[in-house]
Amino acid sequence: VLHAVIPAGGSGTRLWPLSRAGHPKFLHPLTGNASSLLQATVERLGPLSGPENTYVVTGAAHAVAVARQLPEVPDDNILVEPSPRDSCPAIGLAAAVIAAKEPQALMGSFAADHLVRDGDAFIAAVRAAAEGARRGQLMTIGITPTHPETGYGYLRAGEVDADGISRVEEFAEKPAYAVAVSYVESGRYFWNASIFLWRVDVFLGELARQQPELHAGLIRIADSWHGPDRDQVFNEVWPTLPRISVDYAVMEGAAAAGLVSTVPGDFGWNDVGDFHTLGEVLPSDANGNVVLAAEDANPAEVLLLDTERIVVVPQSGRLVATVGVHDLIVVDTPDALMICSRDQAQKVKKVVDDLKTRGRSTHL
Amino acid sequence: VLHAVIPAGGSGTRLWPLSRAGHPKFLHPLTGNASSLLQATVERLGPLSGPENTYVVTGAAHAVAVARQLPEVPDDNILVEPSPRDSCPAIGLAAAVIAAKEPQALMGSFAADHLVRDGDAFIAAVRAAAEGARRGQLMTIGITPTHPETGYGYLRAGEVDADGISRVEEFAEKPAYAVAVSYVESGRYFWNASIFLWRVDVFLGELARQQPELHAGLIRIADSWHGPDRDQVFNEVWPTLPRISVDYAVMEGAAAAGLVSTVPGDFGWNDVGDFHTLGEVLPSDANGNVVLAAEDANPAEVLLLDTERIVVVPQSGRLVATVGVHDLIVVDTPDALMICSRDQAQKVKKVVDDLKTRGRSTHL
Repeated sequence: VLHAVIPAGGSGTRLWPLSRAGHPKFLHPLTGNASSLLQATVERLGPLSGPENTYVVTGAAHAVAVARQLPEVPDDNILVEPSPRDSCPAIGLAAAVIAAKEPQALMGSFAADHLVRDGDAFIAAVRAAAEGARRGQLMTIGITPTHPETGYGYLRAGEVDADGISRVEEFAEKPAYAVAVSYVESGRYFWNASIFLWRVDVFLGELARQQPELHAGLIRIADSWHGPDRDQVFNEVWPTLPRISVDYAVMEGAAAAGLVSTVPGDFGWNDVGDFHTLGEVLPSDANGNVVLAAEDANPAEVLLLDTERIVVVPQSGRLVATVGVHDLIVVDTPDALMICSRDQAQKVKKVVDDLKTRGRSTHL
Repeated sequence: VLHAVIPAGGSGTRLWPLSRAGHPKFLHPLTGNASSLLQATVERLGPLSGPENTYVVTGAAHAVAVARQLPEVPDDNILVEPSPRDSCPAIGLAAAVIAAKEPQALMGSFAADHLVRDGDAFIAAVRAAAEGARRGQLMTIGITPTHPETGYGYLRAGEVDADGISRVEEFAEKPAYAVAVSYVESGRYFWNASIFLWRVDVFLGELARQQPELHAGLIRIADSWHGPDRDQVFNEVWPTLPRISVDYAVMEGAAAAGLVSTVPGDFGWNDVGDFHTLGEVLPSDANGNVVLAAEDANPAEVLLLDTERIVVVPQSGRLVATVGVHDLIVVDTPDALMICSRDQAQKVKKVVDDLKTRGRSTHL
């Protein structure tokens, strides 16, 4: 059985005004149907992990929304961080809590806010990675790159064994464009989508070796998890833990020690980084227009005249009409409207920066 | 003294979703400040006509809004048509009501929904036209054309006399483009902005000659205007009057009889036909962006990043942010959002047509 851990954090400023600090992107239905990204992540893992083996690690600010979106996940499986501490404490806590029940449990970690087009191919890749994890490797799924993306980190993979598993020789930083081109041409580099599978004993062993204090703190919390002191210990120990990502804290060092392997994944993965890429993966009409399902039961009407390749996110319930426009992003929320050229989608976070600078917290 | 008559009708479908059937464009502040087009029209005429000499002819649906926007205009000067009957009955009724009090009164008719940039030049042109009207001509102000517009009718003017007045030889229909070019090059053609000045006795004489039944009906209504039977006579006679424009019913025939003259007007006139032309006449920022003042006391915030030459009408109170866009129209109202390319501004009425076709009357 696979214990699926879903770290659910981050606000997604490039998805403003849909994504807000108080309502980050994983809570939104950016999936082409009514499911939120978080719900779609849980559904996608259904064939491998039932609700009782699904864990979500999230911040206090989002605990209520997560609980309501995932009524089938047991209370104890929603781990609510008292304060944000980056991915290693979050994932490590889940590993320690799972290990306390089942010391050699198989665990996977999957971001709450990514999209996958081909669910069957995804499951097949996770199954292949699980095989490597059972043998004692820290596994990752390396996404087969479709273009020389400079916004992602890469994995360099070694020779492929009989089971389709390769050793990860290196975690490479976000590359310059020319470097990214050479990575893609080489056929040996994959996008690091931060999808990990391991046996919790193997992961916690590496954590103990590389980050002994973090490991000790997490074990203290996990030991008290099912007892009366949980809250006291959690609130006492958690703030003392370092803010560090799992890639940096564990995976890079483990790769250097020959403990990390990968299987390739080619399942239409998308990190939903901005509205433009979201438009690239969701189904469009004959003119290339993508309209995202509204969140409420009474979806807005959208009227597109002489309009091509726009991404519309109608979330205010109002009528949205466009005439003679193309390659735009239109995000319509109850208190803010954002219109952006598709090729400038990365700059949406500048609006958020601008609002912060001006102290306009209402819309953040 | 000039009696200023302001026919206030028409919905302005090319200004949707701001302009609606129930709230047409003359009621909206499309002037660059808080005044509505109607209020700006009254203010503009202030040097010539005080409130007691200002008359508005409007439909029953807009009577309340007109009354509230113009509290200084006396009750009796707001003529409320029981049903729409085009411009000749509307203007003719005002002429007959004014004539009942002052048979040789000087009257002008000015559309409620036009913009004028240079108020002083406007007043000077009206004064010049008034001079011709006193002498017994039906006067119009011919707008000096700035480009070969195919959307307007034209006037052909004859020789200019010592007072700057020319006989109108012909009312020309909306021309094809090549014809419009020849009109502008000739220097003898002016835009017909439907601005008229006359003595009411002269106008009513021509009305009696050309449209005797319409004239008789209007005189019947005017005769009862200040008596106890006003409503009864008005409601009985009005529906029997023909739907006809003043240009067609009176001016064309009067021109053929040598009774129509014109003075040129060059005062930054604009008929506010669509959002693009509105953007052309209102003040813009350094990047060519025009933001229209909001209607309410709590104006929306507008944040334009890397944005050029857009027209924004923020009327919902929401934050509007744009990133990396240009040459767009963005109209944000509480129940509908419209985004249009500036060069397609004429097509906005297609949205209205589409909504009508689909029976979506909510947003009309």
